[in-house]
Amino acid sequence: MQVGFIGIGAMGAAMATRLIEAGHTVQLWNRSPDALKPLVAKGGVAVATAAEAFAGDAVITMLANDEAVRSIVVDGGLLDRAPKGIVHVEMATLSLDLGKQLAAEHAKRGIGYVAAPVLGRPDAAAAGKLNIMAAGETAAIETVQPLFDAMGQKTWIVGAEPHIANATKLACNFVLACAIETLSEAFVLGERNGVEPQALYDILTGTLFAAPAFKTYGQLIIDRKFEPALFKTRLGLKDVRLALAAGEAAGVPLPFGSVVRDNLIDAIGHGDAEKDWAILGMVARRRAGMA
Amino acid sequence: MQVGFIGIGAMGAAMATRLIEAGHTVQLWNRSPDALKPLVAKGGVAVATAAEAFAGDAVITMLANDEAVRSIVVDGGLLDRAPKGIVHVEMATLSLDLGKQLAAEHAKRGIGYVAAPVLGRPDAAAAGKLNIMAAGETAAIETVQPLFDAMGQKTWIVGAEPHIANATKLACNFVLACAIETLSEAFVLGERNGVEPQALYDILTGTLFAAPAFKTYGQLIIDRKFEPALFKTRLGLKDVRLALAAGEAAGVPLPFGSVVRDNLIDAIGHGDAEKDWAILGMVARRRAGMA
Amino acid sequence: MQVGFIGIGAMGAAMATRLIEAGHTVQLWNRSPDALKPLVAKGGVAVATAAEAFAGDAVITMLANDEAVRSIVVDGGLLDRAPKGIVHVEMATLSLDLGKQLAAEHAKRGIGYVAAPVLGRPDAAAAGKLNIMAAGETAAIETVQPLFDAMGQKTWIVGAEPHIANATKLACNFVLACAIETLSEAFVLGERNGVEPQALYDILTGTLFAAPAFKTYGQLIIDRKFEPALFKTRLGLKDVRLALAAGEAAGVPLPFGSVVRDNLIDAIGHGDAEKDWAILGMVARRRAGMA
Amino acid sequence: MQVGFIGIGAMGAAMATRLIEAGHTVQLWNRSPDALKPLVAKGGVAVATAAEAFAGDAVITMLANDEAVRSIVVDGGLLDRAPKGIVHVEMATLSLDLGKQLAAEHAKRGIGYVAAPVLGRPDAAAAGKLNIMAAGETAAIETVQPLFDAMGQKTWIVGAEPHIANATKLACNFVLACAIETLSEAFVLGERNGVEPQALYDILTGTLFAAPAFKTYGQLIIDRKFEPALFKTRLGLKDVRLALAAGEAAGVPLPFGSVVRDNLIDAIGHGDAEKDWAILGMVARRRAGMA
Repeated sequence: MQVGFIGIGAMGAAMATRLIEAGHTVQLWNRSPDALKPLVAKGGVAVATAAEAFAGDAVITMLANDEAVRSIVVDGGLLDRAPKGIVHVEMATLSLDLGKQLAAEHAKRGIGYVAAPVLGRPDAAAAGKLNIMAAGETAAIETVQPLFDAMGQKTWIVGAEPHIANATKLACNFVLACAIETLSEAFVLGERNGVEPQALYDILTGTLFAAPAFKTYGQLIIDRKFEPALFKTRLGLKDVRLALAAGEAAGVPLPFGSVVRDNLIDAIGHGDAEKDWAILGMVARRRAGMA
Repeated sequence: MQVGFIGIGAMGAAMATRLIEAGHTVQLWNRSPDALKPLVAKGGVAVATAAEAFAGDAVITMLANDEAVRSIVVDGGLLDRAPKGIVHVEMATLSLDLGKQLAAEHAKRGIGYVAAPVLGRPDAAAAGKLNIMAAGETAAIETVQPLFDAMGQKTWIVGAEPHIANATKLACNFVLACAIETLSEAFVLGERNGVEPQALYDILTGTLFAAPAFKTYGQLIIDRKFEPALFKTRLGLKDVRLALAAGEAAGVPLPFGSVVRDNLIDAIGHGDAEKDWAILGMVARRRAGMA
Repeated sequence: MQVGFIGIGAMGAAMATRLIEAGHTVQLWNRSPDALKPLVAKGGVAVATAAEAFAGDAVITMLANDEAVRSIVVDGGLLDRAPKGIVHVEMATLSLDLGKQLAAEHAKRGIGYVAAPVLGRPDAAAAGKLNIMAAGETAAIETVQPLFDAMGQKTWIVGAEPHIANATKLACNFVLACAIETLSEAFVLGERNGVEPQALYDILTGTLFAAPAFKTYGQLIIDRKFEPALFKTRLGLKDVRLALAAGEAAGVPLPFGSVVRDNLIDAIGHGDAEKDWAILGMVARRRAGMA
Repeated sequence: MQVGFIGIGAMGAAMATRLIEAGHTVQLWNRSPDALKPLVAKGGVAVATAAEAFAGDAVITMLANDEAVRSIVVDGGLLDRAPKGIVHVEMATLSLDLGKQLAAEHAKRGIGYVAAPVLGRPDAAAAGKLNIMAAGETAAIETVQPLFDAMGQKTWIVGAEPHIANATKLACNFVLACAIETLSEAFVLGERNGVEPQALYDILTGTLFAAPAFKTYGQLIIDRKFEPALFKTRLGLKDVRLALAAGEAAGVPLPFGSVVRDNLIDAIGHGDAEKDWAILGMVARRRAGMA
């Protein structure tokens, strides 16, 4: 397929590489063009403007946040100049508000649109092991399925209205944030009462909680390995804030989300915005008077 | 081995059956003697007093709560009349206060003592698939290891001081309670924004949260299957209260625990004390104004 | 003085009336011009554009929210066309972000600027009994002090940087929201244990809590008098959200704020967005299973 | 009247002094008899056993906590030996459980019983300025009204069932705890955004929150005057715990109470159990990364 790719950060680079390796013709654009070089070496095509990348059979956007999507895609006029028949696949974690707005803007102009945020970090992206949560019209999803197959191990179709995929992603990150906080509190509760954190970890991840989220973040907390961050506290707070906002708009109280938010703010108030959000483990320790 | 078993509820019956089937001589006592009949049919020996069961190589107590242990074991004078060389294995979920008191009472009298609460419900007990978290002196644990092997799939040694096993159990149940609340909030957040709970469940349990706790309780919440209870809300609140008390005594704030406590009380305030604590899913729905 | 007044809602009308009655020449503008008629009858001057009102010695803006201020004052270009020497007094409850932005925009253009949000409802405004929290350069505040004297019973100078007044207002409303939630929980705690809410109210407001906030809102909760709203739940949530955002940006966890936010969302999820935020009393009742 | 007084701590001493000064014959007992000397000098009568004090027209108990009441009054057999026609007035802050048990124990034996906890500290007691919240049968209350008149500025009759007075006291202390937490969060929110705590205090206590609770505790927080404690954090946590337990037993979630509990535990985890519970102000500061 002829496919554009806009937003070449760590995730975007790994995903675009998969597309190139799968034989697709990939036209790449990034605000800072230096990021394109390694991909051009692999066979990608660097283009000079976002509009040139917003062309072909499909275009993927993998931008940093709402602001970037707003300025480049919406305000930048990409949608007004989009070619007929293209399917736009937005794969970043966005607010539900923007997710809905994007769906409306595309519908208004008759542009194919799929929201398809992912679970997985750059290493999973590089291995084509992402989990892709997609929502949109069936025909549009079918068109881009070969792209999903190149990037992900599985595509989870969650609905026909694109914003449902955005909501799904926010809910997943919400659950992950709560899991980290749960472990953080449990380890301190145990340790203050004589339980070795590693022993508690072994039992939990060896029995009822034998799952990647608990294994990965439990060990990070125990090892106090907060740098380099798998996911920065600052970004974790952003995602929790988006989940809370989605709840607020829908009349859904989220008391666990509120606690996590307070604790992430506590971490940031202590200068840890750029560390991994497993830093919640240190917030729990600090509140219990532990060094 | 010659082993006593005090407390034949659903769990105790399944565990004692395993011991009988493994060839041990098991002397059984229960406050209500009717519960002993099926076990006698399998080869167990009914005795008339708790003191007769508190005899032999080892004795297991699997009583309902702190009050039962206090009245039967401590105030009932069993420890004062315990034979030399016996190892007492307490396997219920107790408060940390009582756990420490029991350790001290045994030590004072030179009675072997192992705290060994379990993870698993009666069906797991019947299949010998419990996870046993044991703490106590190594020699005492080694003495009763054959009993653990008959009842459990694995023994997790968590420390030499018995109360550490009590604390470990409280921490595990704390994590489980938090997982249920997390799912409850996430499902409502999703559903109010167009995400089918089953779709969210499939993604979570198919990726980062592929663990028994999430699979079991996620499905119970979605199916609204709260009766018969796997674990009653009333008992769930008791365990969360014990975890909070253990935290309080050790100077450990547990904000997630506090939220779960409030929501379990909400459920009980709505008449659901005897339903499964997955009822937290309905508390989250109700708070969002969903029927 | 020659003074403009932009934003003639319930509060603005009462405040502008006070200025007219004090003998100032008041040029009035409102998006919907019908609101101006009663004030013209009292001696005010209706003007056709916001720019005409943004003239004279001083101009007061009392608009509904951030969006209105952004569109009319900032994006509407009022500041670019402001006459030399004018002092702009912004008196609504705004976000801290906008409060800081406004200060910067005025400073950049050399326009006098005072942030002066108020405590008090329309009846207090009509009686000239507002409490005005003002921040800005001393000279600017002194210029508009006669206007404050006409509208308020007291001006509280809180700082030289205007945004400090915005933060003060958010903190005051935060405390008020917490007081309502506190009473809501206390009444239910008492009532479920045999204490008449009115008896508890009498003791509280007759002893340690003999203050207007507790008297006013305590009685509203007891009488379930939620309409007409003194302050709508929807607006209460907005202000709590602004306080939480101000905390978040400054690294300040606000766990009480989080609880209030969740409960206001609960109320809105039950269809009570337009009722008085004393509706928190019903949220507490509902959570305890009380009709 | 002939009246006994059991429990001569700081509060009891001040209260008993008032009774002596009012001309009553007061028989005093305290676990540690040294405390009686100053009162004997004022005209009180020291007796050797609690039973001797539990005699005459009425007897007041003002013991430290549930445990003391249980051991001295209930288990100590005072009720079994109580003289006919005596009215027992229990004035300490007790758990609701014990409050109900005491009512039942007295009723069973036909002993007059009034629960009458107080608002006010030793200085208020010494000045006869306590607020007394009384519940019990009308005749019993009327009998002891002269005693209340000597000790308090006002008696608030809250019900005929004695435990209602216990619940009222817990609700009052709950509101006070929430007020301290509210101020703690508000001051930090303000300070981190440029608002002087004293300025915020002046506005709050000069307008909507012109009440003793806010004046007293607001100033303690600002001045960081936590010693000597007006009310110790350890005791504050006890009272919040009793309020939460009363809520739990009645199916009442108290999310504000849960937050306060967590924060008091945080304070105690940092070694501040004996300081004034205004220390919540420091917990809020610490969580925001402020020294």
